[in-house]
Amino acid sequence: MAIVQCVPNFSEGRDLDKVEQIVSCLKNKEGFKLISYEPDPNYNRTVVTLLGDPERIIDRVVEMVGKTTELIDLNYHEGEHPRMGATDVIPFIPIKDITMGECVELAKRCGQLINEKYNIPIFLYEEAQDREYRKDLASIRKGQFEGMKEKIKQPEWAPDYGKPEIHPTAGATAVGARYPLIAFNINLDTNNVEIANNIAKAIRFSSGGFRYIKAGPAEIKEKGIVQVTMNITNYKKTPIYRVFETVKMEAKRYGVNVTGSEIIGLVPMEALVESLEYYLGLEGFHMEKVLETHLLE
Amino acid sequence: MAIVQCVPNFSEGRDLDKVEQIVSCLKNKEGFKLISYEPDPNYNRTVVTLLGDPERIIDRVVEMVGKTTELIDLNYHEGEHPRMGATDVIPFIPIKDITMGECVELAKRCGQLINEKYNIPIFLYEEAQDREYRKDLASIRKGQFEGMKEKIKQPEWAPDYGKPEIHPTAGATAVGARYPLIAFNINLDTNNVEIANNIAKAIRFSSGGFRYIKAGPAEIKEKGIVQVTMNITNYKKTPIYRVFETVKMEAKRYGVNVTGSEIIGLVPMEALVESLEYYLGLEGFHMEKVLETHLLE
Repeated sequence: MAIVQCVPNFSEGRDLDKVEQIVSCLKNKEGFKLISYEPDPNYNRTVVTLLGDPERIIDRVVEMVGKTTELIDLNYHEGEHPRMGATDVIPFIPIKDITMGECVELAKRCGQLINEKYNIPIFLYEEAQDREYRKDLASIRKGQFEGMKEKIKQPEWAPDYGKPEIHPTAGATAVGARYPLIAFNINLDTNNVEIANNIAKAIRFSSGGFRYIKAGPAEIKEKGIVQVTMNITNYKKTPIYRVFETVKMEAKRYGVNVTGSEIIGLVPMEALVESLEYYLGLEGFHMEKVLETHLLE
Repeated sequence: MAIVQCVPNFSEGRDLDKVEQIVSCLKNKEGFKLISYEPDPNYNRTVVTLLGDPERIIDRVVEMVGKTTELIDLNYHEGEHPRMGATDVIPFIPIKDITMGECVELAKRCGQLINEKYNIPIFLYEEAQDREYRKDLASIRKGQFEGMKEKIKQPEWAPDYGKPEIHPTAGATAVGARYPLIAFNINLDTNNVEIANNIAKAIRFSSGGFRYIKAGPAEIKEKGIVQVTMNITNYKKTPIYRVFETVKMEAKRYGVNVTGSEIIGLVPMEALVESLEYYLGLEGFHMEKVLETHLLE
């Protein structure tokens, strides 16, 4: 049986009543599992994780986009996380018995359905996008909801589905297919966002850091701290521990400490195991030594 | 379907030809999987890990005991690990859809079969043993092969199956049922076994250390180092990281460094995850965040 992971992000993380209404489209449905939904008040955003039958997931996600269109008005939205849509991004990730090509088809069908139903312009991204300059989500989203009004009129930023104008309240949505990534945030014991920004620059690919890190700063105001927030897009080549230890090392320059971290959404067991190997100096370890590897067979 | 883990240990880790002959009883059999076999020349011992249908495992393990009886003569055996039998110990561990009570029955049947077929005296241990003073494997095995000749004649050390005399070349075998444990060894950059012994004392329950640690020293002669070798019998209450960091801390007293570690046999994913949580200061993490937890459902 094909298993896909789908991780829609929508732009509401404060009004928990609205979050519940939106997520209700995905609860207790047949053929897939709502693994988690994580509303973040600082980001004013909720990350939803679904796992299961692609055919069952797609219709319910389209329904969810309808709900976010009804309940979220981006003209009145603020938060620490960049966003351009009420439903901001919908990635499909191949997990089991499904190819990346099939996930690309899924993303295209999902994008087309959303556009037809709600008149929201759709940008395909990552593996679902052929044009190199618009594969990267950050490049597409640059300017955010506010900037997209004009940006979308430029021929090179015309949406993949829909007319070149944003939805007046729901903006635009990116739908794509990609490899698994790890959403990882590291906490610093300072409220100085400049320090988080400098550290993010040190570790991210776009400014000279690790090949598979996308990172930025974020303020966690209610805790009076800042975060380095990142995506690890290939944990085999840029493992969690290496980024974590590099952030600790850079933080020292500023007399600042790393106080903890968090993983948003799902993480593959292998990514955790390879980091623990580092900390324990484990010799000759491999996934075959993990009981669950065999139970899965 | 019931899944049991069975981890027979036999007393040959140097003559790889013999190891192969013994293990051939367990390769490519129906109904269970030979997960690994790890011959250790220093210990002169091989740890075998099997996973699968208890009914299929039991006969093949009995066959394997026959092979070790044929090929191993303990009168000519030496190694770093304590041992009393050609097949030294056979634990059954409940993994899925099987109770500890059923594993106890399995151990008893296995022990009885071995005794009937090869005339090897059997000691039941851990959950398969009712008498408190002989539940612990180390207590049973104390004196080893050499000492067992006399020890077994004492009424309180009469075997659970068989006459009170050892098999002349294959000694005695312990068969039991137990909860999962982690076999964990930590390397020190010294050849002074006294230091490993002192550290083992510091961490093990029997001399005042952690509640769920059994530990001792071992020399790894060909590497010129020593190890603290241990079993973690409850990783939820005494997690891997805590023992590892304590060994590092104690090693400092002697100007010695921890250079690495190894896990022998299988380890449950949860034990790895909880240790990584410590190193990364992960907040709000739980097994539901691991992809494989859901794939297993």
